[in-house]
Amino acid sequence: MGAIVDGCPPGLELSEADLQIDLDRRKPGSSKYTTQRREDDKVEILSGVFEGKTTGTTIGLLIHNTDQRSRDYSKIKDVFRPAHADFSYQQKYGIRDYRGGGRASARETTMRVAAAGIAKKYLKEKYNTTIEGYLAQIGHIVPEVIDLSLVNENPFFCPDPKVLDEIAQFIDQLRADGDSIGAKIEVLVRNMHVGLGEPVFGKLDADLAGAMMGINAVKGVAIGDGFDVVTQRGSEHRDEMDRAGFRSNSAGGTVGGISTGQDLVCSIALKPTSSITKSGDTLNKEGETVQISTTGRHDPCVGIRATPIAEAMVALVLMDHCLRDRAQNHDVERKSLFDE
Amino acid sequence: MGAIVDGCPPGLELSEADLQIDLDRRKPGSSKYTTQRREDDKVEILSGVFEGKTTGTTIGLLIHNTDQRSRDYSKIKDVFRPAHADFSYQQKYGIRDYRGGGRASARETTMRVAAAGIAKKYLKEKYNTTIEGYLAQIGHIVPEVIDLSLVNENPFFCPDPKVLDEIAQFIDQLRADGDSIGAKIEVLVRNMHVGLGEPVFGKLDADLAGAMMGINAVKGVAIGDGFDVVTQRGSEHRDEMDRAGFRSNSAGGTVGGISTGQDLVCSIALKPTSSITKSGDTLNKEGETVQISTTGRHDPCVGIRATPIAEAMVALVLMDHCLRDRAQNHDVERKSLFDE
Amino acid sequence: MGAIVDGCPPGLELSEADLQIDLDRRKPGSSKYTTQRREDDKVEILSGVFEGKTTGTTIGLLIHNTDQRSRDYSKIKDVFRPAHADFSYQQKYGIRDYRGGGRASARETTMRVAAAGIAKKYLKEKYNTTIEGYLAQIGHIVPEVIDLSLVNENPFFCPDPKVLDEIAQFIDQLRADGDSIGAKIEVLVRNMHVGLGEPVFGKLDADLAGAMMGINAVKGVAIGDGFDVVTQRGSEHRDEMDRAGFRSNSAGGTVGGISTGQDLVCSIALKPTSSITKSGDTLNKEGETVQISTTGRHDPCVGIRATPIAEAMVALVLMDHCLRDRAQNHDVERKSLFDE
Amino acid sequence: MGAIVDGCPPGLELSEADLQIDLDRRKPGSSKYTTQRREDDKVEILSGVFEGKTTGTTIGLLIHNTDQRSRDYSKIKDVFRPAHADFSYQQKYGIRDYRGGGRASARETTMRVAAAGIAKKYLKEKYNTTIEGYLAQIGHIVPEVIDLSLVNENPFFCPDPKVLDEIAQFIDQLRADGDSIGAKIEVLVRNMHVGLGEPVFGKLDADLAGAMMGINAVKGVAIGDGFDVVTQRGSEHRDEMDRAGFRSNSAGGTVGGISTGQDLVCSIALKPTSSITKSGDTLNKEGETVQISTTGRHDPCVGIRATPIAEAMVALVLMDHCLRDRAQNHDVERKSLFDE
Repeated sequence: MGAIVDGCPPGLELSEADLQIDLDRRKPGSSKYTTQRREDDKVEILSGVFEGKTTGTTIGLLIHNTDQRSRDYSKIKDVFRPAHADFSYQQKYGIRDYRGGGRASARETTMRVAAAGIAKKYLKEKYNTTIEGYLAQIGHIVPEVIDLSLVNENPFFCPDPKVLDEIAQFIDQLRADGDSIGAKIEVLVRNMHVGLGEPVFGKLDADLAGAMMGINAVKGVAIGDGFDVVTQRGSEHRDEMDRAGFRSNSAGGTVGGISTGQDLVCSIALKPTSSITKSGDTLNKEGETVQISTTGRHDPCVGIRATPIAEAMVALVLMDHCLRDRAQNHDVERKSLFDE
Repeated sequence: MGAIVDGCPPGLELSEADLQIDLDRRKPGSSKYTTQRREDDKVEILSGVFEGKTTGTTIGLLIHNTDQRSRDYSKIKDVFRPAHADFSYQQKYGIRDYRGGGRASARETTMRVAAAGIAKKYLKEKYNTTIEGYLAQIGHIVPEVIDLSLVNENPFFCPDPKVLDEIAQFIDQLRADGDSIGAKIEVLVRNMHVGLGEPVFGKLDADLAGAMMGINAVKGVAIGDGFDVVTQRGSEHRDEMDRAGFRSNSAGGTVGGISTGQDLVCSIALKPTSSITKSGDTLNKEGETVQISTTGRHDPCVGIRATPIAEAMVALVLMDHCLRDRAQNHDVERKSLFDE
Repeated sequence: MGAIVDGCPPGLELSEADLQIDLDRRKPGSSKYTTQRREDDKVEILSGVFEGKTTGTTIGLLIHNTDQRSRDYSKIKDVFRPAHADFSYQQKYGIRDYRGGGRASARETTMRVAAAGIAKKYLKEKYNTTIEGYLAQIGHIVPEVIDLSLVNENPFFCPDPKVLDEIAQFIDQLRADGDSIGAKIEVLVRNMHVGLGEPVFGKLDADLAGAMMGINAVKGVAIGDGFDVVTQRGSEHRDEMDRAGFRSNSAGGTVGGISTGQDLVCSIALKPTSSITKSGDTLNKEGETVQISTTGRHDPCVGIRATPIAEAMVALVLMDHCLRDRAQNHDVERKSLFDE
Repeated sequence: MGAIVDGCPPGLELSEADLQIDLDRRKPGSSKYTTQRREDDKVEILSGVFEGKTTGTTIGLLIHNTDQRSRDYSKIKDVFRPAHADFSYQQKYGIRDYRGGGRASARETTMRVAAAGIAKKYLKEKYNTTIEGYLAQIGHIVPEVIDLSLVNENPFFCPDPKVLDEIAQFIDQLRADGDSIGAKIEVLVRNMHVGLGEPVFGKLDADLAGAMMGINAVKGVAIGDGFDVVTQRGSEHRDEMDRAGFRSNSAGGTVGGISTGQDLVCSIALKPTSSITKSGDTLNKEGETVQISTTGRHDPCVGIRATPIAEAMVALVLMDHCLRDRAQNHDVERKSLFDE
C-alpha cells in the first residue's frame, strides 16, 4: 500500500517514527477486543525527506502487507453478504473480485493514518493544534467523564475509566453471540486556527463532513451540537461572546463554513461490523435465497479502531485548509479580540 | 445571481417553467410563517437551450434581485452577531462587508435550487427517479405520518396533517419570544439508480454529506439510520435480502459508498435562525462587550424553507454520479436480481 | 456575460477602471483593422469589493451585451462552415444552436480579460511583475525592433514602428481578397517571481500551455526558444550563470516546471480567421456538398486582438501559482544569489 | 514507482504483457544511442484485474527500481547545473535533495507509459484508434518519408530508413563533443473518435497542450499545422469538406476544442539534454562562479526516447475525454456524413 503527499511545506523535521505512532494505535491485533489479524504496518518514507527534513517535493509512503495467509473464499464467492459492498460492486461493474478487501476493506484506511501523521506534526509544531479522538459511545454505553489522557491507555480509546469493564464484557458477549455493535467517535481539536474554510465552495464543515462520511461504515456526521440543534432555540444555540471569549461551543468551532477559533468538535456514527457469524438471509449471484454466516477474524465493533482514522481525516482536512487560507490571507494580521 | 451548469446531456426538453417550480417552493414571503422579504426569483435561461431542448453546451441561468430596499446597517456595522459568520469573516480576511447577505445569506441557495431543477427533470425522465424532501422534526414536534402528497400543501413542507396547527402555534410563540428553533429535514429518493458512487474517492455518501453540510445552518448529516446505528447490532442493522428484494433499509440506500438501489434516505439537522430579536452579548470590532438584538425580516426557522434546498443538493450530487457512472460503466448490463 | 473570481487576497484596492483598461484594448471596433462590431464592454463589479478594497470573498463581474442587432442566420443554419466549430458541435451533441457566438465566439474571452485585470494589478503591486504582449508576426511580416512602449500606440499591438504601414496595407489587401491571415503573439513577463510551479502535476509551463492553447484559434504554444530548441545543442541552449545573473534566456523563464526568475517568454500561433467571404466547399446537414462564403463583420486577423487575451491567460496562471506557492512555501526565505 | 489508474471501464482484458510493450520501447539501454543505464522496468498489476479482466476498481501498477548503484554526488551537491531544475528547486523550497532524479528525472515518465498502456488498449479495442509517435526531426536532420511501419525497427523511432545512418553518425559526433541535441516528436492518431473535448473548460487541444508541455524537456507544442498557421491565409488553412471527407488536415483533428474525426496530429519540441560533459559556467550555493561538467550515463538526445512518452500522454488525454464525452453524450447517435 502506498500514499503520495503533495504540497507539504519544506523544512519540517520528519521521520518514520513520527508516522508510526498513529499506525500502531490503529493496527489490529493490539488487543483481544479487535481482530486477531496481525499486520505490522511498518511505514517507509520513500521520498520527499532529505537529511531528516521535508524537501517540499512529494512525500512517498509505503507499507508492505505482511499478513497474506491464503484464505478460503468458496463461501463468499457467489454470495452477497448483507451490509457489505458485494452487491453494489457486482451491480455497478458486472464483475467482482470476491477475494475481498481491496478498497472496501478497513486496510485501505492505513495510508490515511500514515499520511495524516505529517499533517498532525505540522499543525502541532506550527500552531500548537492538537487533534484527539475518543470513543463517545458504544452500543448503549456512554462514557461520562472525558479524560483525554486515558484514551491511549486502553484498547477502546475510551476516555472514562469507569466504563472499561462494562465495554470489555459487552464485547465478550457480542463475540459469544456472533454479533457486532455500532459506535460513536468524537474528535476534539484544540488551539484551532481561526479563519479556515471558504464562504461557499470549500466550507470547512462541508469538507469535514465529506471526509468523515468517506470513512468506511460511517452513517452520520455532526459538527458541534449536531442533531441536538433540532430542538434548540436560537437564544440557546448561539455562542455569546465577551472579552473572556466564547461562553459556549454549540457551533463546534465553525460558523458560516469558517473556523471561529473555538475548539473543533466533530462526531461520527459507525455502523456495526457487517461480518458476523450470526446467520442471515441473502441472495447468491444466481438470484437464489441462501443463508450466510461470515467467519474469519473480524472486529466486533469497527468503531473501536476508527478513532485514529477519524483523527486522520480531520488532520488532512485542516492541513489542506491551513495551506489554502495561507495562500490567500497570509498578509492579514490576525489579532485575538479576547483577553489572554 | 447567476449559475452555470456544465455537462447536461443534450436533447432534454427544458424551459424556465421547469425550474420555476422549486424556486417558487423555496421563495420567501409565501406564507406568514417565513420571512416577509419578497423575492420574485424569476429565473431566465440565457444559453444552452435551443428550440426547447438542451444543446449540450453550458446552460446559463440568471435571477434578478428585485428586493433591494436600502437598509440601515448601523446597528450591525461594527458588531459580531453571535452564530453569524461576522466574526469568522472578519478574522479570516481582516475586512468585512457588513451589508450582509452575499455568500453567507440564504439567498445564495437560490441558484442551487434553480440548477437542480435541470437535474431533477433529467433524473425523472431518464430513470423515473423522484427526490422528495419533508420536514422531519421542528423543535420537539415530530410528524408521525409521512404522507408525501401533503408536503407541498402546507407552508411547512410537513407530511403529517395532524401536527400543522401545533407547528403554526409554535412559530407564533417563537415570534412573540423573539426567538427561533432548529429543524430536521429528510430527503427520500425513490427509484434509485443502482451502482452510483465510487469505491474510495467519490463515494456517494461522502459526496452527499459534503453537499448537505455545505447548506447554510446545517450541523449534522445522516444516511439511513444515521446516529441510530450506534446502538444497533450487526444482525439488526444489516438489510437482509431475498427474491422480493431488501427486507429493510437501515443502509439508507448506500453501502461501501455505492448505491444499492434501495431508496436513498438522507437527513440533515439545521440550527435555529441566528438573527433573533432576543438580546444577547457579543463583542464589537474594538473588542468591547455589547448587547445585540437583530431586527429585520427573518424566518423563525430556517429549516422550513430548507426542504427544496436539501432536495436540490441531493439532485445535483445524484446527477453528477449518474454521468460519472455512465462514463465508466455504460457497457455493463444491469439486471435486477429481484422478482418484479 | 459574467465571471466569478475566487481566492483574491483581501485588501487590494480595486475599481472598475482597473479592469476597463485591458477591456478597452481588447474591444472590437477600435480601429478600421478589426471587426466593426461595436461592443462597449463596460464591466461592473457586483461583489467582493467594499469601500474600494477587495474583501477576500468572491468577486462577481458582469458585462452587458449591447450589440444585439438581429442577424440573418439562414445562410449558415444548416451548413458547416469550414474551420468553424459547427461540424464538431453537431457531431458531439447531435443538436446545434446556429445563432452562433456562445462559447466558441471571441466574445467569450472578454471575461477572461476582465478577471485577469485583478491578477495583473495584484502581481504588479505585490511583486512589480509586468505582463506585456505584442504582435510578434503577422503573415510574413516580422517586427525587427521590440519597443514595448509602442505596443499600445497602434491598432496592431506592434512593437516596431517601421512595419506599421506594411501591416495596414496587408490587411487592406486581405479585406479586398475576402481572405484572412494568421499571427504570432508573444507575451513577456518581467520581474518574475522565482519558484512558481510544481515539480510534476501543476508545472508552470504545462499550465501555461494548457491555458494558452485554450484561447480560440491557437494552434501552437512555445516557451522560451520553443521549436528552435530542436536544432540547438545542449552547450548552446543552457543558460549559463554567473554573479551577474543568467547570461541568456533560452529557457524562457522556466526549468523543470518551475520559474527561475528569468523573464517569462511565451508565444502562441493563431490561425487565420475562419469567417471569410472567399468561397469554399463544405457539407450541409443533409450531407450535400455546398459552397459557403461567410459575410458579416469579422477581423481579417483574429491574432491582432488576441494580445490582451494572451496577457490575460498568462496573468491568471501566474496568479494561481503565486497563491499556490505561497500556501506551501511562504516560510522559505528567498535570497537572490546574484549581485544587484 | 507506482501508479493508480481510476475509472477504467470493467471487462477489459488486461495483462502485464499489454503494458510491457511500451515500457520496453521506452526503457534505456536498448541501444548504444541512449543512456547505458539498465532498467528492467518490469511492471506488476497489483489490483483492479481479476481473472484477466479489469474489475472497474482502481488498477494499481508497480515497477521496482533495479538499477540502484550508488553514485558520487560530490560534484553536483552544491552546484546548480545549467538548464537543470537544481536552481529552481533550491529557490522554491530552500532545500534540495541533490541525489537527483526524483520527480525531475526521466524515470518519472515510466509510470505514465505503463498507465497509458491501458488507455491504448481500450481505445484500440473499442474504437480501433491507434496512437503512433515518431521522430520528426533531430537537429537539422528531418525524415522525408513517414513510414510508420519502420518506427519500431530502429533505435531512433525514425520513420525514414534513409536518414538512419546520418542520425547514428550525428549522435556519435555529439558524444565525442560532449554535447547534446534537441528533437521534434510527432504523434499521429488514426480512427479518431469525433466529438471529444469540451467547448470552453476542458478543450481537447488545451488538455493535450498541458499534458505534452508537462513532459520533461518539452518547450513547444503544436496541433496540426502549429506555428505554420502564422503565415497561412484563411482560404488555405481551412479544411474544406465534401462527401469524400475533409480534403486536408491543417486543423490537426480539432476545431473549437472538439475533435472533428480527422487524424489528430500533435508535435512537441524537446530541448537538448542538459547533462553534458562540455564544461560551462554556473554558480554554487555560496554564489561563487564555478565550472561544471556533468559526467554519467546520459542520452545525447532525450527526444529519442520521448516517443513512447508522447504517445502515452496523448493516450491518457484521449481516454479521459472518451469517458467524459460518454458521460454526457452517450445517447447521441453519431452518423458519419461522409461516403464510406
